[in-house]
Amino acid sequence: MAKVLMKGNEAIGRAAMESGCKYFFGYPITPQNELPEYMSKELPKIGGVFLQAESEVAAINMVYGAAGSGARVMTSSSSPGIALKQEGISYIAGAELPAVIVNIMRGGPGLGGIQPSQADYFMSTRGGANGDYRTPVYAPATIQEAVDMVMEAFDVADYYRTPVMVVADGMIGQMMEPVEFKAPKRRELKEKTWATTGTNGERKPNIINSLFLQPQQLEDHCIRLDAKYKEIEKNEVQYEMYKTEDAEFVFVAYGTTARITKNTVDALREEGIKAGLIRPKTLWPFPFKAFNEIPNAKNIMSVEMSMGQMIEDVKLAVEGRIPVHFYGRTGGMIPTPDAIAEKAKEVLGGAR
Amino acid sequence: MAKVLMKGNEAIGRAAMESGCKYFFGYPITPQNELPEYMSKELPKIGGVFLQAESEVAAINMVYGAAGSGARVMTSSSSPGIALKQEGISYIAGAELPAVIVNIMRGGPGLGGIQPSQADYFMSTRGGANGDYRTPVYAPATIQEAVDMVMEAFDVADYYRTPVMVVADGMIGQMMEPVEFKAPKRRELKEKTWATTGTNGERKPNIINSLFLQPQQLEDHCIRLDAKYKEIEKNEVQYEMYKTEDAEFVFVAYGTTARITKNTVDALREEGIKAGLIRPKTLWPFPFKAFNEIPNAKNIMSVEMSMGQMIEDVKLAVEGRIPVHFYGRTGGMIPTPDAIAEKAKEVLGGAR
Amino acid sequence: MAKVLMKGNEAIGRAAMESGCKYFFGYPITPQNELPEYMSKELPKIGGVFLQAESEVAAINMVYGAAGSGARVMTSSSSPGIALKQEGISYIAGAELPAVIVNIMRGGPGLGGIQPSQADYFMSTRGGANGDYRTPVYAPATIQEAVDMVMEAFDVADYYRTPVMVVADGMIGQMMEPVEFKAPKRRELKEKTWATTGTNGERKPNIINSLFLQPQQLEDHCIRLDAKYKEIEKNEVQYEMYKTEDAEFVFVAYGTTARITKNTVDALREEGIKAGLIRPKTLWPFPFKAFNEIPNAKNIMSVEMSMGQMIEDVKLAVEGRIPVHFYGRTGGMIPTPDAIAEKAKEVLGGAR
Amino acid sequence: MAKVLMKGNEAIGRAAMESGCKYFFGYPITPQNELPEYMSKELPKIGGVFLQAESEVAAINMVYGAAGSGARVMTSSSSPGIALKQEGISYIAGAELPAVIVNIMRGGPGLGGIQPSQADYFMSTRGGANGDYRTPVYAPATIQEAVDMVMEAFDVADYYRTPVMVVADGMIGQMMEPVEFKAPKRRELKEKTWATTGTNGERKPNIINSLFLQPQQLEDHCIRLDAKYKEIEKNEVQYEMYKTEDAEFVFVAYGTTARITKNTVDALREEGIKAGLIRPKTLWPFPFKAFNEIPNAKNIMSVEMSMGQMIEDVKLAVEGRIPVHFYGRTGGMIPTPDAIAEKAKEVLGGAR
Repeated sequence: MAKVLMKGNEAIGRAAMESGCKYFFGYPITPQNELPEYMSKELPKIGGVFLQAESEVAAINMVYGAAGSGARVMTSSSSPGIALKQEGISYIAGAELPAVIVNIMRGGPGLGGIQPSQADYFMSTRGGANGDYRTPVYAPATIQEAVDMVMEAFDVADYYRTPVMVVADGMIGQMMEPVEFKAPKRRELKEKTWATTGTNGERKPNIINSLFLQPQQLEDHCIRLDAKYKEIEKNEVQYEMYKTEDAEFVFVAYGTTARITKNTVDALREEGIKAGLIRPKTLWPFPFKAFNEIPNAKNIMSVEMSMGQMIEDVKLAVEGRIPVHFYGRTGGMIPTPDAIAEKAKEVLGGAR
Repeated sequence: MAKVLMKGNEAIGRAAMESGCKYFFGYPITPQNELPEYMSKELPKIGGVFLQAESEVAAINMVYGAAGSGARVMTSSSSPGIALKQEGISYIAGAELPAVIVNIMRGGPGLGGIQPSQADYFMSTRGGANGDYRTPVYAPATIQEAVDMVMEAFDVADYYRTPVMVVADGMIGQMMEPVEFKAPKRRELKEKTWATTGTNGERKPNIINSLFLQPQQLEDHCIRLDAKYKEIEKNEVQYEMYKTEDAEFVFVAYGTTARITKNTVDALREEGIKAGLIRPKTLWPFPFKAFNEIPNAKNIMSVEMSMGQMIEDVKLAVEGRIPVHFYGRTGGMIPTPDAIAEKAKEVLGGAR
Repeated sequence: MAKVLMKGNEAIGRAAMESGCKYFFGYPITPQNELPEYMSKELPKIGGVFLQAESEVAAINMVYGAAGSGARVMTSSSSPGIALKQEGISYIAGAELPAVIVNIMRGGPGLGGIQPSQADYFMSTRGGANGDYRTPVYAPATIQEAVDMVMEAFDVADYYRTPVMVVADGMIGQMMEPVEFKAPKRRELKEKTWATTGTNGERKPNIINSLFLQPQQLEDHCIRLDAKYKEIEKNEVQYEMYKTEDAEFVFVAYGTTARITKNTVDALREEGIKAGLIRPKTLWPFPFKAFNEIPNAKNIMSVEMSMGQMIEDVKLAVEGRIPVHFYGRTGGMIPTPDAIAEKAKEVLGGAR
Repeated sequence: MAKVLMKGNEAIGRAAMESGCKYFFGYPITPQNELPEYMSKELPKIGGVFLQAESEVAAINMVYGAAGSGARVMTSSSSPGIALKQEGISYIAGAELPAVIVNIMRGGPGLGGIQPSQADYFMSTRGGANGDYRTPVYAPATIQEAVDMVMEAFDVADYYRTPVMVVADGMIGQMMEPVEFKAPKRRELKEKTWATTGTNGERKPNIINSLFLQPQQLEDHCIRLDAKYKEIEKNEVQYEMYKTEDAEFVFVAYGTTARITKNTVDALREEGIKAGLIRPKTLWPFPFKAFNEIPNAKNIMSVEMSMGQMIEDVKLAVEGRIPVHFYGRTGGMIPTPDAIAEKAKEVLGGAR
């Protein structure tokens, strides 16, 4: 397929459909409305279903139902809408069902604003709801990457039987870039023999469930889930190293912020400062091992569109060996390459 | 007031009323039903309101409304119910309103089970919903402490204008112990001039809001919130050090798990192993500084009724200086002192 | 108590409180918002509860709950909001609970408009929901009457253990008139021994219920209800006869329309036409017997702010003995005395 | 198509699909669950959508949405569930959209019971919700008739742009009979140029709406609707006359009750009593004119599975010319032919 120029929100929808997603349940919220709008137009053409539900809670529970029947299904929303979906996501994780949830993040807390943000890092990576579970979280920095990640997300969801998040910000949702839809490297996906597809009287009914009243059963279930999460941590972490081989000042940033920070890295290098960037492409599993590949790092700085959330993972990675700094803008304010560079130099001024 | 023998869930309700809480909105879920049941009987007697709402979402939004009018208000639920309330909590945090939310934790994810659990640590301490916010989290280990903490929670909520969580587990909710209701050390609480109490035409209307459409306004708001959270981190952290002065093997545990682990500490000491316990009484702010008071520690072990959540804060505290181990049961399984000791000795066997 | 000048919506609220109503559950809709607004301000002052629910459905079910506990409780809404409450009203009728429901009618169907209307006659008098039940329906024509009827409605609700409707239109809700609050003639009201007020372990729990799975039980229940409705038909019908003794042209009209039609009657009489008016004050039970008191009637005309609904009851009353005509405006259009007179003369022109 | 043996509920579903209905939105309630269950299995096979909504209210609003897009859409429920849908039906009527609503009636009021009933006559024929509107109501007495009526209902809905009800009782829903699916006599159906199908930028957007804020606009709209209802009254009334030519004792009954009453007619005739039956097949429009075709009638008896609702229409038809009697069972009790005959003879005993 040749490259086509698409808006991020629409490209995400198209990517889902290319992955065989025929079902979308959602509720409107800025700045992601182009995505459900696109699905509402396109899904009926392929015999799929788009449904605007009564509420975010209804929508995620429809996702739960469709996923239980073995269908590829997606929902999307923006920050407070995703907050409302947290209980449902926990149910889907507990029932071990595949589903893809897209969060086009806006500022918070509460209603917050409608401009780009990365302030849902905690909610996304620490399981915003109850219980011992995690969800893989993809964080694209370009529209092409959003497309690729959505397509991979469906495979990962099916392979591990888990809900998968794709978190972007309004920048990526609203921006237009040329994209190509190419199938992801194919995983060996098993038939969904667990799905509730009707027995035809030929087998025992399958049961979709997240309730385990016997503590020992529930603990066994959690241990099984945990083993799965460890497997994901081993196999599915993704990150990009940008000019880090010799880097002394290493930024960590994802999504739109990473795109901006690359400019900072280039600019600093022109001034003779050996800067580099670790860009997590998966937020969970977080690329802890990337921090073993920066032998010359003397300073690390987490750059975020939030008041400092990913920095916790950075600190967990660094374990006190190198000073960890922070630069963030929030509430829809977007950091500039210069301001980031400025902050880095301020640190270096102090550190040198 | 003399000591009275009370069930945990009811003592929590009584403590709220002693603090001047006249409003309770909730939705039933095991294992916390004795708390709303108690409130439904007692609140009307003092001219208060108990209301069973249509849903958890409705309940937390009623809390939002009552808090906005300046009233002392509480809700309670258990894990998946609290998950449903996350969006509302984020609104309350964003609108800077005082409210107390009690979570009698059960196993998860999803519906999980109804037995005691501590698997909502992430949801409680990382703000389960969207945006840059935190909520103070109290974790009582006895019913007396539950009472004291609920009473303090109302003051802290008012003082900082923030929702406050009290997280316990079914053990504490169901158990009976003698308790005393004594007023907490009095903070200087300001009049709630911000509350929407009707203007009588004498002032401009107060507005309760979490929406800030201008990014710069929202960022300013988040920075103001962040300053408040830093203040809370400085002033409100609470923890107990149990035999830690000379401890070489330091456990970290809270709530019921801490109670059990104290027995482990005592047993190990009888065997000549210098054990101790750091018990966080506030989960956020986490007692990072407690880890500066264990000069002899050679091993640290996070003991949890979950698959390992608080251990992240422990690692953030320790910064790689000491090995951090983990022992957990989950899904309603309760660790025994012996099993914890066993695990510790296994570590020591390996470490010595 | 002396007369005070009040807006209709507020006077209705005050009347409820004077009747001992301490609980109000509702959801906002034009043109009745002054009523809940008034209750929200006044009820807390007397230790009562005003609650804005999540939805009309939630509100009526809260009324169901409060009524079950024996409290005097009211809700109000306008036409489509009342439609949403129909199922709940049927439950309250089936469970034989007292409650007062105010409908400040607006034009329909659907969202319709926000101007005065009487197009909910069928929904009000034929039980808009499922099953064999009726609700007494009061239709005030002045604010004083609205006050008196609300006060009586609480007594009637308690006496017969039934939901009672008070239907007015936006005219009456918005208009101001001087009113007096005087207790209605006192009925012998029994203690509510059926209410779920807590047993204190001293009696068997009371059960509030509308479910009867055994058909014979349900039929017995319906027969009991029917006997009650017959009792109400016998005792509670109310109407006003205006210049009907010698009337040859008899109008039938209620509420605001009746007020207007009185002017028509007077005007026609000045022109030598012997006009009169039957004004139903209760729509159910309908004043069938009033039609026995118009010996000279040669024509009857139902005047409504709807496309013709009450006319069915008029025809049932008249049983073909006298021609029944119709004049109506709808959608918020208010008939003028002249237009009604015109229509009457048109009929007479044809009939003479 | 040859005859197939089918359960009533399933035959209704199949009939809808044969009519081109591809969308079904509903919420479970006994005794109609076989219908949505059937649709959930069959609709996906033809690229249609079955969706179990969050609530009855959500379901009817999805019907509203699908109807607005020009699709053939159906929902079904039972009595209290239909009560919850009333507001939505009023919106659909106000917005002039075609949709088919099936009510498999159970006893009421409130939750009532789950056995067959006809106690929703008022709710069905008087528009259970707000405003000036009517819905055509089909009342099948056999499964074949249910099939034919559902198929015709879709055409009538499209032709007049109106919601159409099909009301049956649990007897018809649960019973099995051989049925044939033959297309109804074809009406001239216009293209749905009013549907919101996307403009492709080639026309002005269509608007689906039931809100008219200008009273004159709303009145004009109601007058237009009324003209449509008059047209339906003229063209669409359906009834069966059973042995009425010479009948002196005329029963009026519909649905299952009519089936039973036919046996009564035959039995009475064997005893020499000239009995007959008027069977309304449409409840609205009611077959008033059928009452002009019973020249010898001396007594009329409305037989219902309710406490007496249709009897109002019977009285409106008879206008006092002939005595109107009543026999009813309710709450799930089904009248026997003998008991009906008994009641008739009791009347005759008194009348002769």
